[in-house]
This record gives sequence, structure tokens and C-alpha cells, in this order.
Amino acid sequence: MTPEALSALRARFGEQLSTAPAVLHAHAHDESGLEHMQPHAVLFVHSEDDVLDALRLSELHRFAVVPFAAGSSLEGQLVPVRGGLSLDLSRMNAVLDVQAGGFQATVQPGVTYPELNRQLRPHGLFFPVDPGAEASLGGMASTNASGTGAVRYGTMRDQVLELRVALAGGRIIRVGSRARKSSSGYDLKHLFIGAEGTLGVITQLTVKLWPLPSHLVALRCSFDTVEAAAACAVAIMTAALQLERLELLDTEGLRAVNRHEGSAYPERPTLWIELAASSPAALNETLALCRDLCLDAGALEVAAAHSPAERAELWKARHHAYYALRGLYPGHSTLSTDLCVPLQHLPGMIAFARSAIDTAGLQASLLGHVGDGNFHVLFHAPPDDAATWDRIQDVYDRMTREALALGGTCSGEHGVGLHKRRFLRLEHGEALEVMREVKALLDPQNLLNPGKILPEDSAL
Amino acid sequence: MTPEALSALRARFGEQLSTAPAVLHAHAHDESGLEHMQPHAVLFVHSEDDVLDALRLSELHRFAVVPFAAGSSLEGQLVPVRGGLSLDLSRMNAVLDVQAGGFQATVQPGVTYPELNRQLRPHGLFFPVDPGAEASLGGMASTNASGTGAVRYGTMRDQVLELRVALAGGRIIRVGSRARKSSSGYDLKHLFIGAEGTLGVITQLTVKLWPLPSHLVALRCSFDTVEAAAACAVAIMTAALQLERLELLDTEGLRAVNRHEGSAYPERPTLWIELAASSPAALNETLALCRDLCLDAGALEVAAAHSPAERAELWKARHHAYYALRGLYPGHSTLSTDLCVPLQHLPGMIAFARSAIDTAGLQASLLGHVGDGNFHVLFHAPPDDAATWDRIQDVYDRMTREALALGGTCSGEHGVGLHKRRFLRLEHGEALEVMREVKALLDPQNLLNPGKILPEDSAL
Repeated sequence: MTPEALSALRARFGEQLSTAPAVLHAHAHDESGLEHMQPHAVLFVHSEDDVLDALRLSELHRFAVVPFAAGSSLEGQLVPVRGGLSLDLSRMNAVLDVQAGGFQATVQPGVTYPELNRQLRPHGLFFPVDPGAEASLGGMASTNASGTGAVRYGTMRDQVLELRVALAGGRIIRVGSRARKSSSGYDLKHLFIGAEGTLGVITQLTVKLWPLPSHLVALRCSFDTVEAAAACAVAIMTAALQLERLELLDTEGLRAVNRHEGSAYPERPTLWIELAASSPAALNETLALCRDLCLDAGALEVAAAHSPAERAELWKARHHAYYALRGLYPGHSTLSTDLCVPLQHLPGMIAFARSAIDTAGLQASLLGHVGDGNFHVLFHAPPDDAATWDRIQDVYDRMTREALALGGTCSGEHGVGLHKRRFLRLEHGEALEVMREVKALLDPQNLLNPGKILPEDSAL
Repeated sequence: MTPEALSALRARFGEQLSTAPAVLHAHAHDESGLEHMQPHAVLFVHSEDDVLDALRLSELHRFAVVPFAAGSSLEGQLVPVRGGLSLDLSRMNAVLDVQAGGFQATVQPGVTYPELNRQLRPHGLFFPVDPGAEASLGGMASTNASGTGAVRYGTMRDQVLELRVALAGGRIIRVGSRARKSSSGYDLKHLFIGAEGTLGVITQLTVKLWPLPSHLVALRCSFDTVEAAAACAVAIMTAALQLERLELLDTEGLRAVNRHEGSAYPERPTLWIELAASSPAALNETLALCRDLCLDAGALEVAAAHSPAERAELWKARHHAYYALRGLYPGHSTLSTDLCVPLQHLPGMIAFARSAIDTAGLQASLLGHVGDGNFHVLFHAPPDDAATWDRIQDVYDRMTREALALGGTCSGEHGVGLHKRRFLRLEHGEALEVMREVKALLDPQNLLNPGKILPEDSAL
């Protein structure tokens, strides 16, 4: 960023602009911590007008703009690899409107999903996308985040009705509709969902809300092998029960959970299941059916949690698993895969992953949203152990090639960022050229979060 | 189309190309019948390679290409307003693969949804989008079609996992993924869904399948006013029952149904409802709750149909309503609106429409997928009665402005075609310019279904 650019930003934004070392440092990395690169400045925006003026100055002075809010991305999305301005939207965090009768809310991009849910409780409604961390809705839309609720409610892509998006140069558009469905014109909304801020900056979202399910039961059931647990997950999906969640943790995951939570769950591959029904009687029927399915699939025990407190206890363990697993390896860096395959291929894919990891002698744990065919392998190694990281990348590559050959995707929910760019050619083929053309159309000067998503083997 | 173009097509395609008057005539209009314009030739394609070669010749000889299959669109989408080639995909009608364990099927674009469902029955699965007519899946994706199942399963946009799309000039790309979710790269898939063949030609679809619901009950309940019926629909949606369908017909609709089916339903505004549950006991609970809701909302009678035969009888009436209503006005043309508003605004919107129609002294009937906030007003008038058509357009415009002011859309499921282009500026504002840019990017010579979706008040 030139001194002139910095002066122009300072003149327009005053104290909202910061170049304090601690602030620059806090905007130099994301949750993965795998890259560190400081922006030239951080701008705390308060309004859509602030965003538009920042984009106008960006075009005029040709500096990069990297949207930032909660900082919880996992693929390096927030890292300002070409410097420029970190556009911090975390103060645009208002819930603007809750239309309870229409099951929708309009929010600013910096609001976190736990905070939105806190404000929704009095309405008996909730927002079902729970990627973990204290993620912001703008960031969640920008990576098409999901989480444990996706098996029932879908991903961010399924929740976003309407967006306001600030484009390069300072144009503003509204995309999508507040109606539940529309066949009017080209669907631009889905271009911006999952674009990681490379095509525009989301300044407002209208999202769907859902009634809190009335009758719930949570199950925890453990298996001899991770493949058996995955096969059971597929059987449960095939039975079309009214599932709210369906999660898998491997043996190491259970070990980490027990250590982190002080619990004493059997340290075996385990499914976490949540079932819903419209009445206690219907719930009991569903529970009995699901228990039978699990036992038929080789479950060694099935524990059910009925009360809200018991269920919260059970789910806390699963929700903390990522941090619990990182905690097993202090001083190590962690790299997470995020593959997603068609459901029928999940058990085979997990067996492939387990075998590749074991053959390479790597330390890795496996957890996932298996009802969606999505799972994460967390690799742990000391940051400076180059030989191990080479082996990790090799296993990661082989797993990804297998998933793509099965019709899957290199990212189920984390996005591409810096880490998965190298898989995009293989996954998308010729369509990658069209993606490049779309980027060039909407951001001809490559100022919006440059260096993310698209591989750099050919110029934009 | 030049003689050279026709010769080149003939040389490549031989008997697959037709210029027979009856064939040209059959490709000159869609189901609405409001416009007639013949293509210069019709090409019956058998394969993706045929489509690609046709697009190469189109670019070389600069003739327009208008995709065609079942011919059931309602907004003039299939009318070759600039002549050229009608690309008939109806013979590409194979179900290529059913992955029952993965809940997905891969099909060619010309297969119709009733035929797909016929082939799915042995698997205990079904495809839930039912727009009426014998629509093809390629056409349904191209208009983002929906129907009575959308309130439970969503629209085509929610069902399509992966597409193969032939682009202008003869490039082929694969967009989307067979995984249930993906955060990998820009979402190009949704650009082609609802694009009405103006951005590319869909040559293959992989779609989601669903288990046939096991326990169902259908209800028919009638009300004094159409506003009361709509308010009841909103109350049912708010109660979050496990709905499969939620449909509305007005008094004239019931009159038409009775005449068409020989039935004797009360000729009053009526809701058609279908409920599902996982067991007979749960179904009875849901039914009792729904019946109470309807009675509290002023239902004058609630009739329940339990057996498959009774339910089929009830739904036949609703499914035939469009044709039954057209049959009330022999020799008239029919124009259908397709507004969709946020659910909480539905009763007010329907009251507005009813009042505008009555004040203008027009003949019109109202039916709709009210669980989605989507309803159709069918206007009937003799084709040559210009004064009445002017009044119809005026009422149509006022209804549309009202729906857009409420945050709704000019099309819930039929698409834009020729008829709704004039609403796009008002609905999309600045985003319309981005739509034009996307069209220019993907079809720089404006050869793919030209004259559709985008209004012509400024050049592409």
C-alpha cells in the first residue's frame, strides 16, 4: 500500500483505521495458524457506506482488500498474502430485523451465530448452521460453512435468502430474494456464497430461521472400527429417520474428548446421533428403530441422553473435539482435510484414509459430519518438521485424489483459501477457466482477497 | 439462418435435422400459446457430442439456438423469437444411473419427471419436483421449476447436485458435485439453473432422490374467503408440522375442478394439505393438530383422505386445476402470474390481488403453492380483446409492484421467458447490470436463446 493510499484512508476514516502492531498481528493469520502475513492497515468499518468507500479507495489506489470478522477460517482465507487492507467487519454486528412469522432474520455480516441464536430464543426459533468457533455470518456465507446441523438443515447456501454485496470499485447490489423461492433472473447469490470475499464483500444477509425442535434424544454409540461406525451412519441415513445430527469421532478423538472434558466415554470409534420427533410417543418409536439399526450394524453400546442437560453434556464433547484434539499435541501445528464424498462411498473412503495414514506412520485423527459424507482428518506435526509435513501433504493428496475419483469434493465446508488451491484443477477441470473468467469480470484488477481460491499456475 | 448454415447442419446431422412445416410449427410456441414464431430448423440431438457440434456450427454461422424438450414452459421460453435452430433434446431421455444407496440419479435432460419416478419406484425412492405437464428435467432445471412438493423438498435448485453444461462455441463443463455439500470454488451450477438456456445447454443432470414417505394423510378444507384460507396456510406453516404439500384453490378453481373431474366438492376457497409421519400413531397426532389449526382458522369443513386411492383422487383434482380452469374459458387465452412473497405477507398479498382483479372487473382465478408464499392468478380473455388484455396487464403490473415492495419476486417457479422481462429492472436494480455482464461473458455473440430473461431496453 502506498503512503498516498494510507493517507487517503486516514483522511476518510480517522480513528477507524489502525496500523498498531498488535492490531496488524491479530489480522495476520486465521484459526489454522499455518500462515502469518500482516496487512498494511486494518479498517474497522461501521456501515455499508464505509465498505463502499474503502472499495472505492482500493480501486483508486490499487490496494488489496481482505474481509475479516471473527478470524475463524481454517484454510488461510483471512491472510493478507499481498498486504493491503484488512477490512474488519466485526463491528457491523447488529441483528437488524427478526421476522418471526416469515421465519427470517436480517443481520449485519459481523454478527456471530451464537449471538444470533441468543437473540432468537424468545421467538422459539433458531439458526441451524454451527461451524464451531465464534464464526460470523458473513464469514460463514463466504465459505459456505456448515457443521453438525447440515445433515438436517443444509449449509449456509441453503439458509441465505438475500445478500447485499459491495463489489470492487464501490458498486452495491442486492442478490436473491426474501421469498422462499424465485425463478427470476440469473442466480448471482450463489456466486458470492463460498467466494471467500474474492468477488465482493457481503454487507447484509437475510437468512432462514427454523423452529426449535420440540422433542429430541441424543445417542452415543461406539464400534470396534471406524469403518463399522461409518457403515452404520450410512444405514441410518438410508432409513430416513428424522435426524438432527449424525457425527463421528475416532478412537483418538474419544481419547482427546475424555482428557479435555474429564469424561470416561469408551475410547472407541463413536457415533453421536440426535433424533427429533413431533411428540414423545413418536420420539420413542424413532429411538427404538435407530437403536436397532445401530446394534444390527455392530454397535457395542448405545447410550441415550434425554434431558436437555444430558444432551448438552454429550454434544459439548463433540463440539469441543477440534480443540481437544489440538490439545493432545501441544506445540504442534494441525492441518485439517475436509473431504466430502457421495454417501454410499463414505465407508470405503474412510477405510482408504485410515490405511493411508497408518501406512505413512502419521499422527492423525478423524472426525466428521458423516451424515453428509463429510469428514476431517487432523494431521499433527511440529511446525518445523519438514519431512513429516511432506508425508502429510502426500497422504492428503492421495486421499483427495481418491475422493475426487469417487465424485466427491476437496472441501465439504471449510472452503479453499490458500491450502486447497492445488486441488481445484483436478476437481473442476474446464470449469476452473470459467471461474477465472467470473473473477476477472467482477474484480478485473484482482483487488478482492487476491491469491485465494484460484490456483496461480496461470494468470487471471 | 443462412443457406450455408442450413447446409452445414444438414451435412453433419442428416435426418436428425428437420424443416418439415409440422415440426417447425410444433416448435413455434410453448404451453402458454401466447406467442408463435417458427425456428428455421429443428435438430433432434441424440448425444452431448451432437449438442456440442450444433453449438460450434451456431458460433461459426451465427444462428440462434433455442433448447427445447417437453415444450411445457409457460413464459414463452421456448419461442425462437429470432429464428435459428430449435435444439430438441427430447430424445436424450435416458435414466443413466440410479445410485439408490447415495440417494441420487444421473439422467439426460430430456427425461420427464413422471418417467423418472416410474423408474425409481422399485427402489422405494422418488423425485419430488412436480411442476405439472410432462416436463423434462433439463427444462425444469432451466426454469428452476417446483410444484406441490417444494414446501417440503424445495425446488429444482435444491435437487440438482451436478450438471454437465455445453457452453456457446462448444465447450463442455461439469459444475457442482455429487457430494451432498461442497465449498470448493465458485458455484457456477446455480448460474445455469434458472437461466432458461441463455447461458448454456444442460446435457446431463445428477439429482437428489428421496425415500417415499411411509405414512401419509391428505386433507381438503374449505373456507369462506380466500384470505382466510391463506391465513390458515400461514398458521399451518408456523406450526412446523411435517407437511408434504400445502395448496390453495379459490372458488372458481373448485367450480372448474368439479366440472372437469365430475366431483362435488364445496365450491369455496379450499386448502389441499398432505401430512407425513414416521408411524400411524405419529400421523394421527399430526392430523389431529392440523385439523384443530384449520378449524381455529375458520375452516367450514375438514375432509381427510387416508387410503392411497382416496389421496390420489384428491390430488388429481388439484393437479388438473390449471387445465380445468383453462377449460372453463374455451377459445380464451390464459395468462398466469407467478408471484411469490415472504410467507407473513401472503394473506395481505392475496387480498390485494383479489381486490385489484375485482375492481378491474376481470375474469381470473387464483391457485397456489401457498406454503411457499407462491400463487398464480390465471387471467382469461379472448386473444383479440385488446382492451381487456390492457386491463389484465395493468392489474398484473400493480400486483407485481406490490409483491416486490413486500420483498417478493415476480416469479416463484415459471421463470421469466418473454413475459416477465419488464419486471426485472424493478426487482433486481443494479444486479441486472451484473446479469447482463454474465450473459455477455458466457455468450458474447448472444446466440443462446436470445431475447429471453434480460429486458432489451439497453444493449447486452
